[in-house]
Amino acid sequence: MNQPIGIFDSGVGGLTVAAAIQKLLPQESLIYFGDTIHSPYGDKSEETIRFYAEEIVRFLLGQGCKAVVIACNTASALAFEHLQEQFPGTLILNVIDPVVEYVGSNINNKVGIIATRATTKSGVYRKRLRKLNPKLNIVTAATPLLVGVVEEGFVNTKVSSGAIEAYLGSKKFQDISTLILGCTHFPLLQKEIEQFFGGRTEIVDSPELVAHQLKRLLQSQALLSSAETVEHQFVVSEYTEAFARTARMFFGARLELKEHLL
Amino acid sequence: MNQPIGIFDSGVGGLTVAAAIQKLLPQESLIYFGDTIHSPYGDKSEETIRFYAEEIVRFLLGQGCKAVVIACNTASALAFEHLQEQFPGTLILNVIDPVVEYVGSNINNKVGIIATRATTKSGVYRKRLRKLNPKLNIVTAATPLLVGVVEEGFVNTKVSSGAIEAYLGSKKFQDISTLILGCTHFPLLQKEIEQFFGGRTEIVDSPELVAHQLKRLLQSQALLSSAETVEHQFVVSEYTEAFARTARMFFGARLELKEHLL
Repeated sequence: MNQPIGIFDSGVGGLTVAAAIQKLLPQESLIYFGDTIHSPYGDKSEETIRFYAEEIVRFLLGQGCKAVVIACNTASALAFEHLQEQFPGTLILNVIDPVVEYVGSNINNKVGIIATRATTKSGVYRKRLRKLNPKLNIVTAATPLLVGVVEEGFVNTKVSSGAIEAYLGSKKFQDISTLILGCTHFPLLQKEIEQFFGGRTEIVDSPELVAHQLKRLLQSQALLSSAETVEHQFVVSEYTEAFARTARMFFGARLELKEHLL
Repeated sequence: MNQPIGIFDSGVGGLTVAAAIQKLLPQESLIYFGDTIHSPYGDKSEETIRFYAEEIVRFLLGQGCKAVVIACNTASALAFEHLQEQFPGTLILNVIDPVVEYVGSNINNKVGIIATRATTKSGVYRKRLRKLNPKLNIVTAATPLLVGVVEEGFVNTKVSSGAIEAYLGSKKFQDISTLILGCTHFPLLQKEIEQFFGGRTEIVDSPELVAHQLKRLLQSQALLSSAETVEHQFVVSEYTEAFARTARMFFGARLELKEHLL
């Protein structure tokens, strides 16, 4: 099954997921779709995000993808079930469930979650964690500026540390044992967040967990690739320099970027 | 001529312009359109922004507006001429020309300009200033995170000061005499930017200059209102709490927000 794996996000955030998949499954070809023209998703309505996500999955399946990874927490929170209904029989993964499974099993956790406004408002992490483990102590915060901090390259500056302090300095986050990075942009701030908590808190991000779940699912359905050469494609709904810059950072300078209007 | 004045922006930024117009022309009714579903404009293409701007102006004229103010630098930079062509005979103002006229007349200025990526890339301030005054010394920078800093309420924090220092601390901005705030979000950071420059630099923002130009133009065409009561309307392409919060900050808690899909 040498068909490609489709991965999509509103912009650059999902590249952290694509990179983790490439590392764990180097024999798989990837098609990454960044919906830059509608980025960011984090402040949009459920209806809008479902509409965009459906169009993107239709495009990826049209390219022959054998599986689709929603590499965006907001779209995972608001559009996953909708996509399953619209595309029955298609292997679709979201970035939330692997994290919930990993975190929810430890009953002693006090879990913090940071995410975009839309993901936070959806309450999806809270609901799924509670379902798995009703006694879990959970605190959440919407931290939308951290998306821009990453997109604009302010990682490891006074700007990132100031935003992290403002968002995570509140009392409710003080004694958490685990922090879920509920947005695919946030792994790029992981070290700073770890330092802010002085190593007392486990920081959980989705890229690696999602890559492992994808591997298990492909394996169980005998869908792993045996290709000798791989080819990655990068498609955006609108060319932006910010996307090209970040994609090259992850996948090398020779990467080619195509535009596809939704 | 008691018809309303239409004002639009991609989101909350243009409210600084609406507030300046309300202050100078308290007898005028306003219809403010925030294109929240497509916000931010700052990283989008010319074609996309023209398309959205045209739809919005069509909507505002359909509401009977006697004049339209493009309260967004990005749309002013990329869509003003297009809108003039599409709607001949309509009084359309942009937020750039009043600033260029004010700043460009002083030949001794070294002028700094900060704006979104799209406005900076368009080179519109530089071109128009040079046309007025070919010898002007001009330096520019794209400062997109400052939009999020304002949208997320990080004004007067380490985050805003860190971003201002990072963006404006470069050598080329050191000896500017004038700084143009080329984005309608930035007036909310004006005091901090003034402090950063230690009072040596004149900070020029568009809201007041635009309001005065609007008054002159309405006067010259005998379009000023003589209404005894005014009514302001606020319309967004998608309801967001961030917009509602900021609009209420400017126009009072009783403000009603309508949704209109473009």
